[in-house]
Amino acid sequence: MPELFTVVSPDEAFERLRARLSPDPRAEHVPLEHALGRTLARSIVAGESLPAFARSAMDGYAVRARETHGASEGSPIYLRLIGEVSMGVIPEMTLAPGTCMRIHTGAALPRGADAVVMVEETNLLDGGEVEVLSSVAVGEDVVQLGEDITAGTTALERGHRLRAVDIGALAALGITAVPVAPRPRVAVISTGDELVPPDVHPSPGEIRDVNGPLICAMLQGAGADARHCGIIEDDERHLFAAAAAALADNDVVVVTAGSSVSARDNTVRALERLGAPGILLHGVAVKPGKPTIVACAGTKPVFGLPGNPVSAAVLCWRLVVPAVRFLQGAPVPEGGLPAPVGSARLAQNVPSRSGREDYVAVNLARGTDGLLVAEPVFVRSNLIFSLARAGSFVRVPRDAGGLRAGEMVEVYAWS
Amino acid sequence: MPELFTVVSPDEAFERLRARLSPDPRAEHVPLEHALGRTLARSIVAGESLPAFARSAMDGYAVRARETHGASEGSPIYLRLIGEVSMGVIPEMTLAPGTCMRIHTGAALPRGADAVVMVEETNLLDGGEVEVLSSVAVGEDVVQLGEDITAGTTALERGHRLRAVDIGALAALGITAVPVAPRPRVAVISTGDELVPPDVHPSPGEIRDVNGPLICAMLQGAGADARHCGIIEDDERHLFAAAAAALADNDVVVVTAGSSVSARDNTVRALERLGAPGILLHGVAVKPGKPTIVACAGTKPVFGLPGNPVSAAVLCWRLVVPAVRFLQGAPVPEGGLPAPVGSARLAQNVPSRSGREDYVAVNLARGTDGLLVAEPVFVRSNLIFSLARAGSFVRVPRDAGGLRAGEMVEVYAWS
Repeated sequence: MPELFTVVSPDEAFERLRARLSPDPRAEHVPLEHALGRTLARSIVAGESLPAFARSAMDGYAVRARETHGASEGSPIYLRLIGEVSMGVIPEMTLAPGTCMRIHTGAALPRGADAVVMVEETNLLDGGEVEVLSSVAVGEDVVQLGEDITAGTTALERGHRLRAVDIGALAALGITAVPVAPRPRVAVISTGDELVPPDVHPSPGEIRDVNGPLICAMLQGAGADARHCGIIEDDERHLFAAAAAALADNDVVVVTAGSSVSARDNTVRALERLGAPGILLHGVAVKPGKPTIVACAGTKPVFGLPGNPVSAAVLCWRLVVPAVRFLQGAPVPEGGLPAPVGSARLAQNVPSRSGREDYVAVNLARGTDGLLVAEPVFVRSNLIFSLARAGSFVRVPRDAGGLRAGEMVEVYAWS
Repeated sequence: MPELFTVVSPDEAFERLRARLSPDPRAEHVPLEHALGRTLARSIVAGESLPAFARSAMDGYAVRARETHGASEGSPIYLRLIGEVSMGVIPEMTLAPGTCMRIHTGAALPRGADAVVMVEETNLLDGGEVEVLSSVAVGEDVVQLGEDITAGTTALERGHRLRAVDIGALAALGITAVPVAPRPRVAVISTGDELVPPDVHPSPGEIRDVNGPLICAMLQGAGADARHCGIIEDDERHLFAAAAAALADNDVVVVTAGSSVSARDNTVRALERLGAPGILLHGVAVKPGKPTIVACAGTKPVFGLPGNPVSAAVLCWRLVVPAVRFLQGAPVPEGGLPAPVGSARLAQNVPSRSGREDYVAVNLARGTDGLLVAEPVFVRSNLIFSLARAGSFVRVPRDAGGLRAGEMVEVYAWS
């Protein structure tokens, strides 16, 4: 019996879908303290230069650099101490020739000064003189006006996902209401007559639904507002009704299809009826996860993921997560492949067939030479625990025909 | 003027602190759909074996393996089709010799059957016979009872941080109220007379507080319930009062100290007074971030981080994040260093001084040979944007004396 579908590469699958989608143009403004992990809906342009004034980078003395020239431990120079710069104000006093002012890290450089001698290179003498033991150049230990960012520069790009350091950077610019992309609303529907909800004890022959909670959690991690819509009978009419209702209220619909041929057929027919353009492709050249359906109803993506949880997780990561990120305006690369988190040395040969992108679960350990080693973990695509025992995964590129032990490979993490 | 402190290695700093701490023994139960990113407070032992019954891994026919022996395309064998296994029930029928049953992926294997012939290796003939074109071994394309996990086995360890795949695994076991460690409550206090809140326009000489939002976001990412307690005057009395009040309501207090010597002195004196054992160390051999204070009041950790935001971020990641994770029961390795996310080839030499652990911000790019290359980014410890422009960072180990271009180095990411 022939396969019911012709497979396309995951890169092509993603691009066929992306051609139908547009990033959400709206912005919602969230308080800075709730912006971690959200995606910028607008580029942030610096409204001012930072620092806004020349600041000391050290504890020491503000000086005129020229007056320290030639100073050394054996031949110090002497400057008259005329005061101390207070924190948080621009000093009123101008530094006259032959004088210096005590200054703390972060304080504004007084007019007339152009460098700071760090306190470790000085001695404070009785009688209000400072002995300078080394020469400093103009600008030394000074953070110049605009050195961090200049007014009018793009500070953070639209589509950037905010990390803690970005939260700090936004605070520095005074941005406390952050324009972020709305979270895409994703409805996740499980199908399969053998499924019961996780809180129900399965009768013999039944199993608990893994894919609903798994896919929701994965998409939450990608910034989506993902909700599980329960388990729908594996029947075209029920599935269509549930998917159509979900589509009305959501930006994305994900059906974790029953993995049998009949369940796949029902899913295909139900998703096709959701609206034009309908099914874009059925079958992706990825292992595990081939029996995946990508569809589109209007401009809303609709996915039919395989029923095996490991296959569903891989294809969710490979196609649904990039789509959810694209809808938030993130700069998703050509083909949709998320960026690897690093490289590692592969511990064992990994065979693969050409024409197919394979994913292999691994655990990372530090090798004897300090390099990270990726040790493949045996995973069966229908066994969720076999996947949960692995920390990361590696990709066998499409036409690599496998990977060799000792080779450096790219390591990926679940989003 | 000598340094006011003697430095200790970051590993020693972490272990001196850890010796005073205990993981929170309590568990709170959160719904499965809110458990992503939380840390397990109890090990999860499988209450049942999964799968709970032998299941088909393919669409095809359930058979007695012995009866297929010798079958091939040229010499098929024939079995009588006696029915189809419904999804979600244990078949009542027992497979008699010479017969087979149609079975879908995930359906329970009928009694008498011990293997599945995939549909692609068969032809269904008129008259209710199935032509089998290849031989299968006992157990072929069958997922055995308990193959994923057996009852009584530890499924997920206490201290494990839950990823999407773990959420799926918990669902498989029927665990819908997940025992997780309470989020450590962390109070973050900013000090510095030059600071104004991010929503205030700074007067000349003032700057906006970056560290409060930055450190809160970083600790939120590590699972803490981190709250910013505002900016406190750089003065021992006010700082003590604020820190003491914060300590009463929180599990951890972090003061981002003014970075000047006087501010550090005030911080040391204020934190020392919070209670025994007091200051554990002052000065950590990390660049940037040396002027860090680690203290303990009773069993609650108290940190004085440097005022420069880059230094504060590095030391927060190096010491505070591991402490927050340890309080949640996570298995923090000796010395506290978080695990790298991967390796990369360093693009340039990075000099360093022996006896010090250096952190260097990098951006990762794919090199011509496909390997990830880490390109150092110039970062000044007082410039938050210089850090925000980098995606990752690398570590120069304590006695490496620098790293060489072309070397494989460990890559870290902000939590």
